[in-house]
Parts: sequence; structure tokens; C-alpha cells
Amino acid sequence: MTADQRPDKYFEDYELGCVVELGSVAVSEAEIVDFARLYDPQPFHTDPEAAAQGPFDGLIASGWQTCVLTMQRFVPGYLSPASSLGSPGIDELRFRVPVRPGDQLSVRATVVAARPSTSKPDRGIVQTRLETFNGEGALVLSMLLINLILRRP
Amino acid sequence: MTADQRPDKYFEDYELGCVVELGSVAVSEAEIVDFARLYDPQPFHTDPEAAAQGPFDGLIASGWQTCVLTMQRFVPGYLSPASSLGSPGIDELRFRVPVRPGDQLSVRATVVAARPSTSKPDRGIVQTRLETFNGEGALVLSMLLINLILRRP
Repeated sequence: MTADQRPDKYFEDYELGCVVELGSVAVSEAEIVDFARLYDPQPFHTDPEAAAQGPFDGLIASGWQTCVLTMQRFVPGYLSPASSLGSPGIDELRFRVPVRPGDQLSVRATVVAARPSTSKPDRGIVQTRLETFNGEGALVLSMLLINLILRRP
Repeated sequence: MTADQRPDKYFEDYELGCVVELGSVAVSEAEIVDFARLYDPQPFHTDPEAAAQGPFDGLIASGWQTCVLTMQRFVPGYLSPASSLGSPGIDELRFRVPVRPGDQLSVRATVVAARPSTSKPDRGIVQTRLETFNGEGALVLSMLLINLILRRP
């Protein structure tokens, strides 16, 4: 079943405690350098030789790149165009372990809170713990993401 | 003075309450669509026609794009390669007002906490409030960013 064929999800489908495995994505040295040159130009993200002498003993990905690669898995696998109304924000975003060239990142989402909106009866507020792991199973990134989701019509 | 000619900054230079204006960056419709197709493929970020009928009455930028454009200003203007040791994380990230095609985003950083590390005497922990405004002066994004910064040798 392709993403386009998935059934629509609504607020009622985000049940407390529900865990969704969102698959994985690899990140290469070239991708790390290209992303960081544009958005986060620090030597330990952009220059393999300087990074080898730097605080992380080698090149690491910008934490922001890990975030957007996580989002690349999260959006099609967890949200539905029929109901997603965007996000007011994120709490407790933590870069826990450096992401390195060749890492294969896998993403897990857990519904940690879900309540109807008190001001807008057509929607609910879902809080999701997003966790990203490297190929060795180490947690590299975690965050609490808030999403506004339409209730089932 | 270009970025390469800036004097090195160290932990001691991040004084509590210090405000740094980090300049501005524009975002176009094409950039919004290209970024979102890759990382945050939701119709209100990727499809101007669908977005016109969507929850934001038009195309808006992925909040993650606003984050990385903010970082594009922050890294060269606020951090120093001589002292920046990366970030353990971010708190209270909030997408406050949608960013739209043609918006000119300006970034301000304020040092809200700075203390020496208790476990590693060579560094300190700096907490910065990052605020991003659109051309009308509305706050579109805010976050509390933590950075580890070397003390002056």
C-alpha cells in the first residue's frame, strides 16, 4: 500500500500509548556536509579533516538534519493530509548521541497525550514522543511534538 | 569585517542579557515547496493550490525550514568555531505565526542563562532565546537553545 492509498487518520485514531514504527533513513557524509554548509556551518559538521581534530573525534550531522530526516519519516507515516492542521511547537528536543556518516536512522512515534481542543470542537491536540535511533539501537534524538488534528467528521 | 575576520568568542563573552541582532533572510515560494517536498510533505507546505483551500488560507513554510533558516543566521553570527562544542538540545520551540512566501525573516538572540559546567571545567553552558520575526515585526518562531561553549584559554 503506497502512502497515497493509506486510509485517512483522524484525532480519534491517535490512541494514548499507541506506538508507530516509522521506518529508517540513511545519512551519508556528503549529505551531512551539504546540509550543514547551507544551514549549520560548523567545522564538525562541514569539514571531515577539521572534525577529526574536533570535539566529536570526527564528522557529525547537524542536529537539525537529524530532526528533518526524522520528519521525513514522520509526516507520511503518522500524519494524514485529511486531518493534519500543523504544529504549535516542540518541547524537550534533545540531541543525545552524535549522528555520523553512514548511520541508518530509525524513527518511532508514541502518542503520549491526546485531548479534544476546548476552544475549537472540530479538532484535538496530540502530543507525540518522537525517538530516533542509530543502527546500534542508541537513541540519538528525542522530542515531544504537538500536533493539531481534525476530529473524524 | 567578514565572518572569517571576527575575533574568537568564548564562554565569558556570552554575558547574561546580551542581545545580538543576527540579520535577515528571505524565503521564496519555490524554496518553501522544495524544502517541504523533501522533509515535510504536507499540502499546505508543498502545493499552493491545495494550500489556498487549506487551514492556513495559503502556502506556509515548514516550521523546520524556519528553524534552519534561523540557524543559518545564528551559527556564523553568534557562535565561534574556536569555542562551540555543539548543543545538547532545545526547549519551548514554538511556531507562533505562519511564515509565507516572500517573508523576510530577521533573527535575534538573547543570552538568558550562562553558567560554568560543574563536571567539565573547560566549558560553560549558555542558554539563548532565539526569536525570529517576519517583515511586519510579528514573532514567527521562538526557542530556548542550549550551547556548550569553551571558556577562554
